[in-house]
Formats: sequence, C-alpha cells, structure tokens
Amino acid sequence: MKALVFGGPGRRSWDTADDPSIIDPTDVIVQIDTTTICGTDLHILKGDVPAVTDGRILGHEAVGTIVETGAAVSSLKKGDRVLVPAITSCGRCAHCKVGMAAHCQGAGGIGWIFGHLINGLQAEYARVPFAETSVHLVPDDVSDEQVLFLSDILPTGYEIGVQKGGVKPGDTIAVVGAGPVGLAAMMTASIAGAARIIAVDLAPSRLRHARSFGATHTVAGGDAAREEILALTDGYGVDVAMEAVGVPATFDLCTQVVRPGGTVANIGVHGAPTTLHLEELWIKNITITTGLVSGSTVPTLLALAREGRIEAEKLGTHHFKLDQIEQAYDVFGAADKHDALKVVITA
Amino acid sequence: MKALVFGGPGRRSWDTADDPSIIDPTDVIVQIDTTTICGTDLHILKGDVPAVTDGRILGHEAVGTIVETGAAVSSLKKGDRVLVPAITSCGRCAHCKVGMAAHCQGAGGIGWIFGHLINGLQAEYARVPFAETSVHLVPDDVSDEQVLFLSDILPTGYEIGVQKGGVKPGDTIAVVGAGPVGLAAMMTASIAGAARIIAVDLAPSRLRHARSFGATHTVAGGDAAREEILALTDGYGVDVAMEAVGVPATFDLCTQVVRPGGTVANIGVHGAPTTLHLEELWIKNITITTGLVSGSTVPTLLALAREGRIEAEKLGTHHFKLDQIEQAYDVFGAADKHDALKVVITA
Amino acid sequence: MKALVFGGPGRRSWDTADDPSIIDPTDVIVQIDTTTICGTDLHILKGDVPAVTDGRILGHEAVGTIVETGAAVSSLKKGDRVLVPAITSCGRCAHCKVGMAAHCQGAGGIGWIFGHLINGLQAEYARVPFAETSVHLVPDDVSDEQVLFLSDILPTGYEIGVQKGGVKPGDTIAVVGAGPVGLAAMMTASIAGAARIIAVDLAPSRLRHARSFGATHTVAGGDAAREEILALTDGYGVDVAMEAVGVPATFDLCTQVVRPGGTVANIGVHGAPTTLHLEELWIKNITITTGLVSGSTVPTLLALAREGRIEAEKLGTHHFKLDQIEQAYDVFGAADKHDALKVVITA
Amino acid sequence: MKALVFGGPGRRSWDTADDPSIIDPTDVIVQIDTTTICGTDLHILKGDVPAVTDGRILGHEAVGTIVETGAAVSSLKKGDRVLVPAITSCGRCAHCKVGMAAHCQGAGGIGWIFGHLINGLQAEYARVPFAETSVHLVPDDVSDEQVLFLSDILPTGYEIGVQKGGVKPGDTIAVVGAGPVGLAAMMTASIAGAARIIAVDLAPSRLRHARSFGATHTVAGGDAAREEILALTDGYGVDVAMEAVGVPATFDLCTQVVRPGGTVANIGVHGAPTTLHLEELWIKNITITTGLVSGSTVPTLLALAREGRIEAEKLGTHHFKLDQIEQAYDVFGAADKHDALKVVITA
Repeated sequence: MKALVFGGPGRRSWDTADDPSIIDPTDVIVQIDTTTICGTDLHILKGDVPAVTDGRILGHEAVGTIVETGAAVSSLKKGDRVLVPAITSCGRCAHCKVGMAAHCQGAGGIGWIFGHLINGLQAEYARVPFAETSVHLVPDDVSDEQVLFLSDILPTGYEIGVQKGGVKPGDTIAVVGAGPVGLAAMMTASIAGAARIIAVDLAPSRLRHARSFGATHTVAGGDAAREEILALTDGYGVDVAMEAVGVPATFDLCTQVVRPGGTVANIGVHGAPTTLHLEELWIKNITITTGLVSGSTVPTLLALAREGRIEAEKLGTHHFKLDQIEQAYDVFGAADKHDALKVVITA
Repeated sequence: MKALVFGGPGRRSWDTADDPSIIDPTDVIVQIDTTTICGTDLHILKGDVPAVTDGRILGHEAVGTIVETGAAVSSLKKGDRVLVPAITSCGRCAHCKVGMAAHCQGAGGIGWIFGHLINGLQAEYARVPFAETSVHLVPDDVSDEQVLFLSDILPTGYEIGVQKGGVKPGDTIAVVGAGPVGLAAMMTASIAGAARIIAVDLAPSRLRHARSFGATHTVAGGDAAREEILALTDGYGVDVAMEAVGVPATFDLCTQVVRPGGTVANIGVHGAPTTLHLEELWIKNITITTGLVSGSTVPTLLALAREGRIEAEKLGTHHFKLDQIEQAYDVFGAADKHDALKVVITA
Repeated sequence: MKALVFGGPGRRSWDTADDPSIIDPTDVIVQIDTTTICGTDLHILKGDVPAVTDGRILGHEAVGTIVETGAAVSSLKKGDRVLVPAITSCGRCAHCKVGMAAHCQGAGGIGWIFGHLINGLQAEYARVPFAETSVHLVPDDVSDEQVLFLSDILPTGYEIGVQKGGVKPGDTIAVVGAGPVGLAAMMTASIAGAARIIAVDLAPSRLRHARSFGATHTVAGGDAAREEILALTDGYGVDVAMEAVGVPATFDLCTQVVRPGGTVANIGVHGAPTTLHLEELWIKNITITTGLVSGSTVPTLLALAREGRIEAEKLGTHHFKLDQIEQAYDVFGAADKHDALKVVITA
Repeated sequence: MKALVFGGPGRRSWDTADDPSIIDPTDVIVQIDTTTICGTDLHILKGDVPAVTDGRILGHEAVGTIVETGAAVSSLKKGDRVLVPAITSCGRCAHCKVGMAAHCQGAGGIGWIFGHLINGLQAEYARVPFAETSVHLVPDDVSDEQVLFLSDILPTGYEIGVQKGGVKPGDTIAVVGAGPVGLAAMMTASIAGAARIIAVDLAPSRLRHARSFGATHTVAGGDAAREEILALTDGYGVDVAMEAVGVPATFDLCTQVVRPGGTVANIGVHGAPTTLHLEELWIKNITITTGLVSGSTVPTLLALAREGRIEAEKLGTHHFKLDQIEQAYDVFGAADKHDALKVVITA
C-alpha cells in the first residue's frame, strides 16, 4: 500500500509501505476513507517528538471501513464504517475504566499510539488495536467529513477545554488562541450553554473564524487584552479562561482574567515551564487544569453532529485526495498564509 | 391602590386595596411594572389552595421598580428595576444557604409566599420581604418582557426539569406535556446541550409551539406515544423523561420510556397518588425527582436572556394593561381556546 | 467436577457436572477457592427467577485462582488470584464504558449472568467471560474472606444505597432493613462520612448487628418508626433514607422520613408495585433511586479493605467447606433462626 | 474592655479598648468565651499584612455568647451561644449565594475581615457583622473546645484540601506539611473516606501528631520524599497531593507525586511565585487548586463533631486564660519548641 512515511526530522514522503495485518485478536484492519493532519504531525516533522522513529507512518485521525477483524472481535464486522479516534483504549485498565484512555495502561501509559508508537492513519490501510473499545460506528446519515474532526480536535476542545473548565449554562468564558483547537473549544462551549464566549487572538482572520464558531466577542491579543477582557466583565473576570496557544504569556493572561472561583483550562501543548504566581493566586480559589484528550465524549459529539447541533465539518477549509497528501502538508504547514484551519484528505 | 383580590373560590376582582408598607427592615416596596398569571392562580380560584384566604392579593411573578427600602437594606435603592421571583429567600436558613429557597425556613418552610401567605404582585404596589436575598437587578439592556418569565416558569423548567433531570450535552430527552412549563423545559434543555428533544402532547397546537421552543421531534399523546418514543431511540429509551402534566398516566409513560440509568423528572403538579411499578423499576437504575422551583438559576437565566441565547419573551402570547387583568384571567383561563401560552400585563 | 446444581423449583444438589472450558477468547477458567450464597439464590430455588433453567450451576460470588486463559487474554495469567464479581462487564458497550455493567449490552442487557444465564460459581471450577474487564486481582496481603463479599453485597450497599443516595460527610441517614445488604450500606455509609446512621428493623438481633456495622442509632420497625426517626432529627427528616427490605410499607416509610431535598435510595428487590404519593411528594424536592449493582466500586472497596478501613469479613458468620454447601444452604435459608448473616464456603 | 491590640510590626499588647457597639442593623455583639491564635496573626505581627493598621484588635476565631442584637436580626437572640467563623458572609452577593464567602462582595471582596479590616475576636467583646448569615448556633451537648477550631482551621483543611482536592472513598492522598492545617486536612480526609493518608514533614514530632490525626503512612520531608511516596504507590502516584506549607519546593513535590488525572490542592499560604512545569504537566490531566476558606462546611463539621466523628479539640495542645494571651502568643510563636499545635484561650 501507500502511506505517508516519516523519514527523520524534516523528511516525509508518500511512499510504499507494508500492508498492515492483524497482530492481536482484538485488532481490526481499516481501509482509510478520510483522514487529516494534526499540528502534532508538524511537531513530529520538526523532530520534537523523539519517540517517533524513522519509517513510522504518521496520522492519528480517520474515518474508514473495516476490512478484517481479529479472532476476539465480535461486535464489529467487515464493512462497518468507523471513526478511528486519536486515542486507543484497552478498555480494561484502571484509567480506561474511568474514561481516561489518554493514559491507557494497556497501551503503555499513553493512549496516543497511532503515528507515534505504531503506524498511523495517513495511509491506505491501518491496523487498529483494541478495536472494540476504541472505534465508533458512524451512522449512515452522517458524512465522513461531519465526524472526521471528532477523532481528536473536537473532543480535545470539549474534554480539555469545556469539561475540565467546568463550563455551565450562562457562563462567560475566554478562549485565548483561535486556532483549530480553540475554535473547537468555542463550538462545544456553546453547546454547554456558555452565554458569552470571548475569543482572543493576534490574527484578525482567526477572530473572524471565531465568530462563526460561536464567539460572541473578540479581543485582539497583546498587551491590552487583559484590560479589554476585564472591561467586558465589569472588572470581575471570566468564569473559565482557556489557554489554547501553549506559551507562558497566554497562560499568564488566563490567570489574570479568571474570576475568583473560576477555572483556567490548559488546552495548549506547552514546551517550556512558566511562572505560577501563587503569591497572588493562593487566595483566589481558582482551579488550573491540564490534559490530553481521552475521547470519552466522542459518542456525545456524534449524537450532536448527527442532529446538526455541531457542525464540525466547518473546520475543514481545504480538500485533497490521499495521493495529494504532501500538498496537504504544505498548505497545513503554512496555515496562516492559506487561511487554513484543517485539511480534509479523502481516498 | 388597585389590586387583583381573591374573594373566595370562584371570585376575583380588580379592586381597591391598602397600599403596602415596610414591615421588616429587610423589606422593600416595589411598584409593579409588568406581571403575569400562573396556572397556580387558577387553582387558587378553584379553591384548591386552602391556605389562600379571602382578601388576599394574588400573583407571584413581576418586574417592578423599588419605591421604598427598609432600614437594613443597603445594596438596593429607590429606583432600582428588579425582577421579583415567585420564591423569596431569607438567605440565612439551611435551605437558602444551599440554594433551596423552595423550602425557605425563614418563610415558614415554603418559599412561595406571594399571593399565597402574603399579598401578591398582581397589584400596583407590593411589599417584598427578604428583598436583598430575593430580588434580582435587571440590566438596562433587557426589557421587562424578556425577564418576566424568569420569575417562575423558566427556572421551574430549568431547575426541576433540566437540572434535576441531569440533562447533559448530547442527551435525548422527552418532555411529556407542552404547556408553558413544558416549553420552558424544552427551551432550557436546549441550552444544556440536549441533542434531541421529543415533545409529547395531545394538542397539535402545542406541538407546533414546541418546535419553536427547541423540540426536534413531536409525538402525539395517547396510547401509541410509548411505542413511538421508543422507536425514535431504537427501542433504547430516552436519557431523561420530564413529566409536565401532573397525572398518573403521563408519569407512567415517563417510567416506561426512560432508559436504564436515566431520570424521570417530575415538573407537573400532582393532585393524586400514582402507582409506582417498583417490581419492574427496582433493577432499572433509574432516578425519579420531584420539586418546587427555588429560583437559584435566575442569575444564569438572566445572563442567557441578556445575550439572546434564551428568548423567554416568546411565552408571552397575549398582552394586557394592568386594569384589564380580569380580561387577562379570562383569556389565560381558556388558554387552549385562545392558543395562549402566558399573558403579559403591564402597568 | 462437583457443583451445586439447580434441579427446578425446590431442588438443588451437590452433584457431578461437566468441567468448564474456554468458549470465547476473552474467557478464563477459575478454580473456586471461596464462595458464598446470596438471597437471590434462595429466590431462584423458590422458582421466582424463570430464566434459570434446570441443570444450571448456581452462585455468583467467589474468589478463585485462574487455571486457564483464552487466546485474547493478555493482562491475566494462570495462577492469578482473582475476585469474580457478580456482574460481568464486556467493557465495550455504552453501559460498561460509563460503569453501568448492571445493564451490560455485551451480556444481553443484564450484567448478572453467573448462576442465572450461564453456569455459576458454587462449583469447583467456573468459566468467566469477559475476564479482563470483569475480575479483580486480589493483593497478597488480603485474605479471601476479606474480599469475598466485595463480589456483590458490599458494592450493592455502596453503589445502590450510598452512591445513589448521595451520602455526604455529615449526613444523617436511615437504613430500613438491617439484613446483610442493609448492613453493607451502613458500613459503607460510614466510610462516606455519614454522621448519624439510624438502623430500622423488626428484629432486635439485627439491630444489634447494625451497631457493629456503623449504626449510631437503632429504631424498632413498625408503626412508631416514622415518629421515632423524625424525633431523632427534630422533626426535620433524614438526608438519605435507604429501603433495604423490598416491600411497599418500608418504601412508604422512607418517603415519609426523608427531608425536603433528600433522597430515597431503593436497595431492596421489589416484587410488587407500590403507591407513590406524588400529591404530597411533588413539592418536596426529593429524589428516588433504584438499581442493580454494577461493581464499578470494587477497586475502591478493595483499597479500603486492604487498609482495614472496611471489615467486610464481619458479614461471614458461618463457615463451611465446599462439599458441605447443602448444609450451608440450610443455615442461610433459615438465617434468622441461626442469627446468620452470610456464609463462607471454602474449597 | 480589654483586647489584644496590634501596635505596628512586632508590637502587640493586652490593652484597654473601646467596647464594640452595633453599627448596622444586621450586627450582633458577642461576648468572647473562647478564642485562639492563627498563624496569620503571626504574619500580621511581622508586618506582612499591610491592610492591618495600628490599633486593630486581632483574632478571627471564637466561640461566644450574644449580648446584643441589631434591629434586623430576628433569628438570633441575646444569650445564644455561637461559633464566630473567620469568614463573614453577607448572604446576598453572588459569591455568598454559592457558598464562596471567601470572596464576599458585601464585605468588599474578601470575607476575612475580623482582625484584618475591622476589630477582631481576641477581646472580651466583639461586633459581628452580617450575623445571621455568618455565625452558627452551638448545640448544648458540645463544648467550646470541640467547635473552636471549626472557625477556621478545620474548614480550611476540609474545603481547600479535601473538597477542592476531590478526595473520594478509597483514595490515596499525600499531605505535605503536618502543621495544624495539614493535620486538619488529614482528619477530614479520613472522614471523606481516604484509604491511605501519607503525611510528609521534616519534623518527626509532627509526623507523630499526624498518626493521631489519621495518617496511615509517614514520610520524612526532603530529597528522598518523592521516591518514597512513589514507592508507596507502586510508582503510580497519589490521587490527591495537598500542599500545606506554602513554598515552591513542596508545591513542586506535589506536582511530581500526583498520578495522571489527580489533583494538587494548595492549602498553604504562598509568599512567592513558583515554577510550573507545564512542559511536563500539560499532558498529565491534572488539576491544581487554590483557595481561602469560605466556611460553607461548618454545619457539616459541626454535625460530625457532635457525633464524635471528628475530634477537633485534639488540635488544642496548650491552654490559657484570656488575660494570659500574651503568653499564649509566646508559646504559639515558638510552636516547635513547645510541640504546640493550637492554643485554647478562655475568658
């Protein structure tokens, strides 16, 4: 088959690779129908994720069709159309039993294995371990594109931003960073009943996108953002501040605009330590959360997508065929230039 | 002043009454700007609520303007425009401290006192006890009509239907009874993220209203309702079934269509006992809730109304001036004939 | 092998039976080291559970040692000492994923299959389906007897009484019925921080047991119980009332002694409908719950047993060898006469 | 009257002061029967709390008897014995209504006003504002000493350590710092059902105290603590790590020993910023909380103290009369030397 193969820092190619085959009786083989590229894939290509070795097939988001099932698989069958989530779940470890597959012990302590510890989903076919406890059947009345982003980015925004943030009906929230994951957080915060959603970003184009993902107010990033957010809340602060960039300055901003008793939810991937002003925050009754998505909310998001209450497909701004995936990488790698959010890649 | 005075079963009149005055230092006097009529007022007129004695001014929902404040009132002042909720809260009893003013011990064990144990709000002026812990300031940018129904029916639907029902994003719910309180439950269930809202009623006109309050599906009440609701959920049952009628048949229906692990939330006012099939339900892991509104969610609903996320004013189908209140009673008392939901009565 | 075989209503025998063998790749075979008898087994023998057919091996609670594993089993191995819970969990259905194995869809909608839909655990060996998502490794430093009752009765009291009841630190609760499951509820309510535990039973001997399982007050069942419980709470009512008998009179008592805002948790198995006084309860803001155990709290209870914070072994009042199991049935079937709570049966 | 008066950094005296009198109609005057000294009082004496001005009477924990009531006070009367909590609550602001009196807006945004913004409780008499929404009636069957520490330190340990930490039955927790507030956290974590409580401190004498407050394991503070705590949990980490010292090193330790999905609850008062290793923690699904006590759990703790389930009086290691309060300060100020936890000062 053909697949997008990592060749060490800076090197990727749409190349011939071995067809995957069943290894464990709980595996299935999936023919990939639709896939996409994640910001994490770009990090891998920069060499930032040393666990990814040369020759690894990348990708951890896809919709596909089952073509083979392992001996222990009884609830899935050949021909089933499934969403393959970024995070696999063994279903039997202490973490999976409470919906925290992000730290699946059956997968060695981290549920993200596709395109990381095993071959990924940017390929014609892929082996999916722990299939019955990982994949989700896709109803006939929803398209691949409606559910593709439920592999990773929608549940990331919802679980790590909205649920950990504890967003409730009537809340005022700020989402700092209006990239794809920030937009996913806005879209799902709206579902959770937020009354006001303040989007914060440096790029006007992203703030424009934010409006169509549920933002009710927009604030330009930078030195004045703090004052502007506080002004929107009569100086009181927001119920939930979500950090969706991954740098110390935006984390700091979040701690400064959250109200007493509020929550700072970190969605961004951080590469460096930050300063935590406990000398000010100890008395403020705030909560700070971090997290990697588990995918526990995919059934919820599927139900909402099916009824049209979330339109996840709006994240897909650019479309490619699977054999154009290198072009897709070029566009996604220069997202700002192309005003791209996510790419949709179909077989 | 003039007021709507109860004269014993079947008798009401727009009559002269004594002006209210401050009794306790925590009281305020409010000039009533906008008020409405509740189904409970009709029950009182039928003689169903013996605690209401002859001469009592009726009404427990209003928006008004403060004209006088008691000596202990420091956070409210003359001229403040306030929402007076159906339930007053002493703010210091064990129940009020946890947001359950429905059972306010400072008010004798029941928070509903207006038009019940003391004079009510269908009048030119009214005394409001426990003012600082009961009323809500109305922001300038919302109209009386946008918040009037936050006195009682919206928080009833939200607290007793949606919150007690535990509605979560993605849920499928059934609301049995599409009268005003059922519609309020639908509107707020949508805010809480319900994916599918199945409205059930005998009257086609009410099912038509249901659609505009967020129902995604409608089912005609009657013998076939059970099968139809189950069919909509592939035989599985709904996450939350709300009873918004108040009779045994609809309660039974709710227990039959709720899924294992689901909740039956009783919003309706029941006048008779019912049979509970514990021989079937004991194993089903269900939860059944009951309740009188406390008003703890009024700030939340105000925030949502202010942003236009709920349009509570849609409940107001008929409009009257205060001195036409007897006409308003006639229309509201024959609501089905007039296709009326709630009336809006302005000074 | 030998096993306790059901021979139709009223007939049971310690008899020869086929050795179990692996059917599905997710099965294991367990050699039974310690088992017990449940009140449900007595119901089966009375013919109350038609799904149990002649020839079925009974029993659904055991500690044993794995002697064989299916091809898909990777996290358990021969020689592992495991607690086999009453409820098996497929781990992949919607119910199992949220900890509600009671309604496991992989097992056909009910997680209780041992000694019911498949052969049970009162035998020398047993086949355990869905092993990796069902059984629990037993640490070396706890005895069989310390964990045996974590198969069913302890988690039933904890999940269906304490968790569904919402018992919080400082609560006053009443447990109506001081049989084994009522005692399990008292023991675990104490762990959850209940300040006062009022045990209610007709039998003085059971009230004596109640004291050693955490009851702080005891009340004789009968006509005066209601007044006595209310008197203990200054007329206010209890935070949580648990029904652990299974008849209408005790359910009624629970609804009469629960405080506004409190919960009635049904633990008892009900065989008949009851009257629900919604005409009184609709306004009372109460919650009524029902349920079959799922076993989701077994890891929690294991952790507590291991530290000596719960002494589940106190439920084991009478001891037998496996080949004396018919005697054990005689004693357990006349529990009151023998002042028996639960029997312990060892290989 | 006589009172302990702050005279600027380093200066305090048991001095003559004006008798307090009713200012607002919601005030009461309390004769102080029993009081104590807080670590915060020592900070004030060091000059660390600039808001405290010369002449201020210190102290914010007491049990006393009401001697006068304001005009609006109806549920309290002369002669009532009350616990005066550290935090007053206006009962009507948005924060007080949800139990977060720590940030009472009626008191200017901070609920701690005694011995800080107004005169305190280390005196013969004190004015108590917002009395009906702040003080708690003390039942006759409990002594002053049993409830004195419910003013501040017990609810601090419980609300900021146990509740914000989310301690559940069966949890393993670490409490870093076994001073009075750490001990309060251990005592209340035990009530919340923690299975294992690991106390960490540099001082062997404190670890000895820890055992009597519910610690099941003790670990000497210092470089090896991390490894030792991890070893106690098979390398996995604790469910909840509580920081009860207030310095960067112990905060760091907490983030290193908390398990994926666990919580770091900051109870300590921090005087300096710390480094937050988001580059490691972003993926760990952890929660970090901070907070000042609100006192919302005082009724719960009172119920538990009354039943003997918590023995808060064990914190009182040294006893003085009110006119010996300067001696009490000397002992408490050199707590380690005297092996003192808290002092009890009676009129």
